[in-house]
Amino acid sequence: MIKYLEIYTEKRTHFVDITDEIKKLVEESAVLEGVCYIYVPHTTAGIFINENADPDVKWDIENTLEKLIPWENNYQHLEGNAAAHIKSVLVGTNTSIPILKGHLLLGTWQGIFFAEFDGPRTRKVIVKIMQG
Amino acid sequence: MIKYLEIYTEKRTHFVDITDEIKKLVEESAVLEGVCYIYVPHTTAGIFINENADPDVKWDIENTLEKLIPWENNYQHLEGNAAAHIKSVLVGTNTSIPILKGHLLLGTWQGIFFAEFDGPRTRKVIVKIMQG
Amino acid sequence: MIKYLEIYTEKRTHFVDITDEIKKLVEESAVLEGVCYIYVPHTTAGIFINENADPDVKWDIENTLEKLIPWENNYQHLEGNAAAHIKSVLVGTNTSIPILKGHLLLGTWQGIFFAEFDGPRTRKVIVKIMQG
Repeated sequence: MIKYLEIYTEKRTHFVDITDEIKKLVEESAVLEGVCYIYVPHTTAGIFINENADPDVKWDIENTLEKLIPWENNYQHLEGNAAAHIKSVLVGTNTSIPILKGHLLLGTWQGIFFAEFDGPRTRKVIVKIMQG
Repeated sequence: MIKYLEIYTEKRTHFVDITDEIKKLVEESAVLEGVCYIYVPHTTAGIFINENADPDVKWDIENTLEKLIPWENNYQHLEGNAAAHIKSVLVGTNTSIPILKGHLLLGTWQGIFFAEFDGPRTRKVIVKIMQG
Repeated sequence: MIKYLEIYTEKRTHFVDITDEIKKLVEESAVLEGVCYIYVPHTTAGIFINENADPDVKWDIENTLEKLIPWENNYQHLEGNAAAHIKSVLVGTNTSIPILKGHLLLGTWQGIFFAEFDGPRTRKVIVKIMQG
């Protein structure tokens, strides 16, 4: 089963918690054991799994990435969003989470975040759920 | 087949070689061709594949990550372990390795490391082996 | 189906676009729906997905990684290529792309790059295509 999520980001850097949407798709798939693949078909965005309890964690991740890979830094790419491409490479554009008894095996504190690095934009996330 | 490994880390940052445990699970699964998924259900730890011959490589990885993402750096997250969350995002919490003829297709110098960034703790790793 | 690509890199850091080779393998597999896993069995190389339209993007990624993880930086590892190991850990050695109707679900601007960090060398990439 392959499904698409549409995501509306509101800032240049915006980490959107998509955990509930992904959980719903796993439930609808009725797959009891397998793997859920999440794939971002963009070159200036990514996907990561981390804490979704304290919003300060998101802020620290965003701020540290900005310090390491500043928006302006004498890049060659003329579109002005080179930093977003580099962050996408380091954070990654896909992840895989095991499914057991119909549920994602996320840890207690884990949430799934779409990472916008060049927003605001309308984005897509591809979710594939495989039985096995 | 889904199995859990329990891992005991001994320092704040501790890279634990779990290659032999994963190989054993692949052997026990009797899967001849497929994929082995390794998933870390924690938000201050990760998983990576790299050289397990010279221990200095581990030291250089640890030390460089610490320079890039220092433990103390005016983070907002009040628990004091923001750096561990950020390292987890950059290193990643999951990996997938193909299986052929009953063996992981690891390269000659590759080992699988559980990466503790906020230890010491007792941790879990989820291993899913899928035939196909 | 598991296949190997052989890749010849020409510089110390060299990002080689392997999108067409991977697309060809997906076509040959005749898998209509499934997942394509790409796995790098090396410890000083990686794999990433990013823009393959403007070559300046590659240059910015290479240059920023070099600034963050300089080739010389008082590393302990005596072989002199510690930076390549660290870049491999951060960029990652594997990726998974969903397949639908016989095609990789790559985004419009996405290409697949083998990332050499310690070349020039002859390298391998393992491609596994799973139906499901």
